[in-house]
Amino acid sequence: MSTLWGGRFSGALDAQMKQFNDSISFDIRLWEADITGSMAYARALARAGLLTDDELRTLLDGLAAIRAEFAQGAFAVQPTDEDIHTAVERRLKELVGEVAGKLHTGRSRNDQVATDLRLFALKATYELIGALLKVQEALLTQAEPHTETLMPGYTHLQRAQPVSFAHWCLSHFWPLARDADRMLDCARRTAALPLGSGALAGNPFGIARHALARDLGFHAITQNSIDGVGDRDFVAELLFDCALIGVHLSQLAEDLIVFSTAEFGFVTFDDAFATGSSLMPQKKNPDAMELARGKSGRLIGNLVSVLTMLKGLPMAYNKDLQEDKEPLFDSLDTLRLTLPVVAGAVRTLRVNAERMAAALEPAMLATDVAEYLVRKGVPFREAHHLTGRAVALAEQRGISLQDLTPSDWRSISPQFGTDVAQVFDFRQSLASRAVDGGTAPEAVRRQLRSARQEWMQLKQRVDTP
Amino acid sequence: MSTLWGGRFSGALDAQMKQFNDSISFDIRLWEADITGSMAYARALARAGLLTDDELRTLLDGLAAIRAEFAQGAFAVQPTDEDIHTAVERRLKELVGEVAGKLHTGRSRNDQVATDLRLFALKATYELIGALLKVQEALLTQAEPHTETLMPGYTHLQRAQPVSFAHWCLSHFWPLARDADRMLDCARRTAALPLGSGALAGNPFGIARHALARDLGFHAITQNSIDGVGDRDFVAELLFDCALIGVHLSQLAEDLIVFSTAEFGFVTFDDAFATGSSLMPQKKNPDAMELARGKSGRLIGNLVSVLTMLKGLPMAYNKDLQEDKEPLFDSLDTLRLTLPVVAGAVRTLRVNAERMAAALEPAMLATDVAEYLVRKGVPFREAHHLTGRAVALAEQRGISLQDLTPSDWRSISPQFGTDVAQVFDFRQSLASRAVDGGTAPEAVRRQLRSARQEWMQLKQRVDTP
Amino acid sequence: MSTLWGGRFSGALDAQMKQFNDSISFDIRLWEADITGSMAYARALARAGLLTDDELRTLLDGLAAIRAEFAQGAFAVQPTDEDIHTAVERRLKELVGEVAGKLHTGRSRNDQVATDLRLFALKATYELIGALLKVQEALLTQAEPHTETLMPGYTHLQRAQPVSFAHWCLSHFWPLARDADRMLDCARRTAALPLGSGALAGNPFGIARHALARDLGFHAITQNSIDGVGDRDFVAELLFDCALIGVHLSQLAEDLIVFSTAEFGFVTFDDAFATGSSLMPQKKNPDAMELARGKSGRLIGNLVSVLTMLKGLPMAYNKDLQEDKEPLFDSLDTLRLTLPVVAGAVRTLRVNAERMAAALEPAMLATDVAEYLVRKGVPFREAHHLTGRAVALAEQRGISLQDLTPSDWRSISPQFGTDVAQVFDFRQSLASRAVDGGTAPEAVRRQLRSARQEWMQLKQRVDTP
Amino acid sequence: MSTLWGGRFSGALDAQMKQFNDSISFDIRLWEADITGSMAYARALARAGLLTDDELRTLLDGLAAIRAEFAQGAFAVQPTDEDIHTAVERRLKELVGEVAGKLHTGRSRNDQVATDLRLFALKATYELIGALLKVQEALLTQAEPHTETLMPGYTHLQRAQPVSFAHWCLSHFWPLARDADRMLDCARRTAALPLGSGALAGNPFGIARHALARDLGFHAITQNSIDGVGDRDFVAELLFDCALIGVHLSQLAEDLIVFSTAEFGFVTFDDAFATGSSLMPQKKNPDAMELARGKSGRLIGNLVSVLTMLKGLPMAYNKDLQEDKEPLFDSLDTLRLTLPVVAGAVRTLRVNAERMAAALEPAMLATDVAEYLVRKGVPFREAHHLTGRAVALAEQRGISLQDLTPSDWRSISPQFGTDVAQVFDFRQSLASRAVDGGTAPEAVRRQLRSARQEWMQLKQRVDTP
Repeated sequence: MSTLWGGRFSGALDAQMKQFNDSISFDIRLWEADITGSMAYARALARAGLLTDDELRTLLDGLAAIRAEFAQGAFAVQPTDEDIHTAVERRLKELVGEVAGKLHTGRSRNDQVATDLRLFALKATYELIGALLKVQEALLTQAEPHTETLMPGYTHLQRAQPVSFAHWCLSHFWPLARDADRMLDCARRTAALPLGSGALAGNPFGIARHALARDLGFHAITQNSIDGVGDRDFVAELLFDCALIGVHLSQLAEDLIVFSTAEFGFVTFDDAFATGSSLMPQKKNPDAMELARGKSGRLIGNLVSVLTMLKGLPMAYNKDLQEDKEPLFDSLDTLRLTLPVVAGAVRTLRVNAERMAAALEPAMLATDVAEYLVRKGVPFREAHHLTGRAVALAEQRGISLQDLTPSDWRSISPQFGTDVAQVFDFRQSLASRAVDGGTAPEAVRRQLRSARQEWMQLKQRVDTP
Repeated sequence: MSTLWGGRFSGALDAQMKQFNDSISFDIRLWEADITGSMAYARALARAGLLTDDELRTLLDGLAAIRAEFAQGAFAVQPTDEDIHTAVERRLKELVGEVAGKLHTGRSRNDQVATDLRLFALKATYELIGALLKVQEALLTQAEPHTETLMPGYTHLQRAQPVSFAHWCLSHFWPLARDADRMLDCARRTAALPLGSGALAGNPFGIARHALARDLGFHAITQNSIDGVGDRDFVAELLFDCALIGVHLSQLAEDLIVFSTAEFGFVTFDDAFATGSSLMPQKKNPDAMELARGKSGRLIGNLVSVLTMLKGLPMAYNKDLQEDKEPLFDSLDTLRLTLPVVAGAVRTLRVNAERMAAALEPAMLATDVAEYLVRKGVPFREAHHLTGRAVALAEQRGISLQDLTPSDWRSISPQFGTDVAQVFDFRQSLASRAVDGGTAPEAVRRQLRSARQEWMQLKQRVDTP
Repeated sequence: MSTLWGGRFSGALDAQMKQFNDSISFDIRLWEADITGSMAYARALARAGLLTDDELRTLLDGLAAIRAEFAQGAFAVQPTDEDIHTAVERRLKELVGEVAGKLHTGRSRNDQVATDLRLFALKATYELIGALLKVQEALLTQAEPHTETLMPGYTHLQRAQPVSFAHWCLSHFWPLARDADRMLDCARRTAALPLGSGALAGNPFGIARHALARDLGFHAITQNSIDGVGDRDFVAELLFDCALIGVHLSQLAEDLIVFSTAEFGFVTFDDAFATGSSLMPQKKNPDAMELARGKSGRLIGNLVSVLTMLKGLPMAYNKDLQEDKEPLFDSLDTLRLTLPVVAGAVRTLRVNAERMAAALEPAMLATDVAEYLVRKGVPFREAHHLTGRAVALAEQRGISLQDLTPSDWRSISPQFGTDVAQVFDFRQSLASRAVDGGTAPEAVRRQLRSARQEWMQLKQRVDTP
Repeated sequence: MSTLWGGRFSGALDAQMKQFNDSISFDIRLWEADITGSMAYARALARAGLLTDDELRTLLDGLAAIRAEFAQGAFAVQPTDEDIHTAVERRLKELVGEVAGKLHTGRSRNDQVATDLRLFALKATYELIGALLKVQEALLTQAEPHTETLMPGYTHLQRAQPVSFAHWCLSHFWPLARDADRMLDCARRTAALPLGSGALAGNPFGIARHALARDLGFHAITQNSIDGVGDRDFVAELLFDCALIGVHLSQLAEDLIVFSTAEFGFVTFDDAFATGSSLMPQKKNPDAMELARGKSGRLIGNLVSVLTMLKGLPMAYNKDLQEDKEPLFDSLDTLRLTLPVVAGAVRTLRVNAERMAAALEPAMLATDVAEYLVRKGVPFREAHHLTGRAVALAEQRGISLQDLTPSDWRSISPQFGTDVAQVFDFRQSLASRAVDGGTAPEAVRRQLRSARQEWMQLKQRVDTP
């Protein structure tokens, strides 16, 4: 029988029902948030005159002792502890006696758990951004020496135009920067305090909620007690942010899996981040990347879990909301494990510049041929069409575009001079794309500077939230 | 360094990568399937002449010993055990020496894990249907005495027509029958043996796969080794079946949550399946039903996880597939816990027939009024319209439809005779819907017989798969 | 054969393939964005010296003429128009001749479509917030006169504590305020210009991207051309925001569907927002709310569509990205239709204050009884337990909590004085919860002021983006 | 004001509400099913004595005339037609007068729409399987000449073991066979008739539902009228089947996208199924495959839409169910367009056998080396380890595994004889995997025969449902 709501019930809870109902097996992870929240609430009760100084001290000492027990792995969960809140309150009573019963004054598990979960989510958000920054750091490190390392750029996984490897690295830097920015927005919305909402109607003991919010590091209070206990937007939003990070990692992973095939051969994973086969001794498998790609599934799935759970719920608190925690924990744990491995795999990647160079082919400069004509005054669309005919001619002859003769070129358009030969220079093609965001070495170096600046700013926002 | 694929790798695996890559923490649940599969494979190797009788006996004895260790909770996982397969093989070598190395002959972890997971899924499917049958049983038990207990039937959650409580109970029986039927179809597709597919190209040692399939209780073999190692359709399909069960339970739960409000008051949950509030002592909350409703979210989320993970994978085995297990385990565990609780809550439900009766109102017989006109030869659409006018007239007068006077009725249509008064009999309304599937007591009794027959057949199919 | 890439292809496109590949049937909705983008790009080309003033004027005039054609519904799509971009370019050539071919100079459909879609999404975002504001307005209007209208507040759909109807209204105001805030964050990230990224490697003609961004109302440029053409984060994020709005509406709808049942009877929908039944003339169905609730499904589904589509894509542009538009359009259209209907249904809702009042019962003041004891110095947990015993005693006697005699109360605890009778006053219970966010009339009036202020600020941010 | 339920309502429906509520814009696609269902219902009414022979003939003639109007595109929807059912009934009344009003006798839109949608889904299911069979046919056609065409088989996208191209083709045949089988199971469950369920309580006019079911080609009747009107399991199940088809196509597409890169070069798409680039004339993009891959997202999204919509619905019919149609139509339309294009792209694929052969490398026979040792009596695990050492030695020397000298081999294990050289024969490796389902030419020819047999059986089940 629960210690919290037993007064009126005559029958005992069915054993399976108890197991079904209890959340201690997973919400025990909220212990630190729960104790932090209770300490602040005790101080608020004291400020409101509901606890004497002595009582406050007793409660804070008791809670500190419980915190120490948890930190040392010494806290013993009892069968009657249905959740972390009852577990802490039960233990507090054991340690400090009846005064423990004052801690819940005007507080409900409804506003308590909402507060705990926000505290937990805020902390996890900053840690997650920290882990994202490590992946970005690895990408920056890989990019640095490779602003002039040429590789084919692909669209539709077909060779399109030459780009630099640094440019490719940075193409995976910016999505993560958006992720971090998005999580900081989410954190701003998360940092609103529900405590003081009571079960749903508000606290009747004159608790000063703004002071309580400041005490707990929240920037604001929730403005309606019914909404305050039922709102799990911050969970859904954080899960979305995690899902999109998962998508970004799956795209980085896909590139690297393809690049590390025997056929591409652009990169080699370090032994520390690849695995072998039980039956095929020669294999070196990009498992880290495959797992990173595959885990996007569960990150999206967890988001769906919570959105679907929230759908159609009636006002204020419903027990369905207990289903908010495991998906959140799972997404956070997944990324906590995935991000460092991705960072490590990227950081230790071996770049095979010769294989990249060997994959460049003259046809990838067809666009440059068209641009050559544009510079001679031919409208782009016409230039594009003429170049298409040159490509077709070369293909028909079974030769490379570069090997067309001057008369071949002239047969297509008189505007092709002998200087068209100079177009077939991959480095020059790169250099021409010096626009902001382009792949020219100088542009990429500017981009690198921007990226490092962005990174520093994110780091500062995370280090001093 | 892994014992399985270490021969060629020079560097050690990064510690976080190892944790990321290892699956022993969750795939240990496949231990029984893995040992069963290995025993059958040993017998197949012996039949193919790759093991002597002595070697076979040694391997089987060793595997039996490991099975006993697992069953007794005595199996000790070692840090080098990356998954259940390596753990069992490692232990087997400790127990029986070098001959253990013969067990993997021609087998890859790719076909091994696919086989294990199918064995596991098949067993779980039958257990799940067994648990579904218990919920159905509870619904049948509740329906039995209530074929004449009237309650309002709702559409749009508005009172529509009287139905019996038994009829309502059975409306939740049939969806679960479809679920069971669907899972049996899924089981038929799951029961195809991948073992003998090797890593992807097939087994080179003349393993007789059909005999192996029979040995393991599979009805068929997978027909293409590439597909055999990569196919996880059976996981996706089972997860869909679980998700739809979740949806059905959420609908049953929604009905009962609404019916158990103070305002409806149709049913009362037993104390064994309800909980109280920490702040509001008078509350009796339908937590079991709310959790059952909320858990539909995670069941749908798990399905999305796996479908998304499978999306766009290249041929044969990819490490992404390791992400198939946790969602499957979670959905199975969720239902394993939810179904008995739902069964218990339904079985112990107290039916408040007076509250149900009190909620019946004459306006719910408007359709019967229209039908009365139809029986007098008025086309239904016209009858419906005339009845609508009667409803409007009663509402305008602020009286019940039943309280219209004979002249009121005649003012609407001369076809309303004084016998219209006899329409206002809820039991007669019920009795008139005696069509198969209708709510008339005799029809519901027929339906109950069909339901019991269906239940028996499902039970037989599950007991002797 | 496409006019855009036909130069080199020998065979014609398969007819079904053409239908499969073409996107004009849905991306025609981007026409305004496409023309706006092209006009700005023409100006950028002129600034870069690639168009003469005359050419620029010709192009701008031509584009303006096409815009007029679209605005008047006079634009005729041709079978060769595979998408909106080719349609506009084809028409431009018809109108202004070969100079039209210069417009595409250095631009690819990859950066063009990314730009168009961002322009479209930005406009739609602001319109959506505008529609959200109307729903909020309706909630404020309903709340205004009802700060003292009592109703039961529910948790677990069980009567918990009295709240005011205004408080309930506002509980649905704040989630929408968070939605608006979230969309404004999304808009900030969306307002980065991809144009100038070319196909993937960057623009080679010295286009000044920052000026181009300002011209189009973007706050920033995308910083990496590969990422610039492949990034659809802004679509996913907007779809998430739509999905969460859908969840919020489903919760508002659920409350109102339950409140409008015969059993609750708290609210009545206006005939303008309810429908009848084809068979049951007395029915008045909350269809608007049911559709609003049901449409949360498609809003979540559309989000899943795009996240899953993005999963595992390789670098830069892939044709899969064409699948970004229909889910986005569908979610925007869904909300564009749903929000005004929800606003209308809420605005015209009839509040049945007597039914609300009648649903209050003394047991809902059990918490107040406990608080009474707390004010006498009893620790809350003990007070809660004693109150539980009082509830049990009343239930056992079959009387209301309020009807316990003074000696009954004393038998439970000597601290219950005769003044406990004064606790049974619903208005006093309300008034006691005067904390910020609480349900006390004065607190709700403060909350109303905050809400109106928040609303004004959102309106300003939307009106002057 | 609706013609169907207008009798009692005083106010007109809000204009936006009407648009929101009406479903004619999309459910018009049910016209054929609606008319077929109405004809059968008219016959059932006649059998039950509720229509005279003349009335029946009049109704059937009228319905046939409406069917002709629809078939000729001549049916004119009126603003008052809220859905297909009211549209047909309205038109019928125009054509045959008041007797049209008898058609709805005892029928509700609830059981009518459920019946229509099942008829529609059944027909669509068989069409879909027909389209699946075409893709399978293309795969069989491609496989036929290539049982001896060698290519690398991949796991983790790393070269693993040689397989034949035919074997790869068939690896995509079987998943589609499972899809067809799964849809036939779904069709069996779909073919249960809800008509006769009325609004929710059952038909009161003695309709013979079994005869009606036979008339409409249903195998069974739904057994509970409440469940009959609310059950959309058949929609969810069909959407799941579509989603899994989408996943299978995405995997086939991924393989072909990778195989058609310049780096792999294994296959070339026919010009009829590939597209070019607007900026890069040399490009030949696998757009058909990319779209097929990307569309898996919307197919999964549609499934989520419906599952989420169904979650938590109360008993019988709720308007939310109107949201079942668009996702279903979209998934069916998507596959109806995708499958023929995939079939065409596969059928016209050019196979570059030399590129495949050139991608084979001796290290892919490492497993065969291990198997060589196994055949000499070395336990597999030891054999695997020794082979690993040979791979490492070759890598260290910078030579191919094949180029190790006899003394190199002996230095690793005395069991390596000079005959190890004979292992390095790709065809022999293939031939050794002659197990059922293996890649040996003879095994693949057996597999082809099985596949053709399976295909014929599916075709028969579809042609004579």
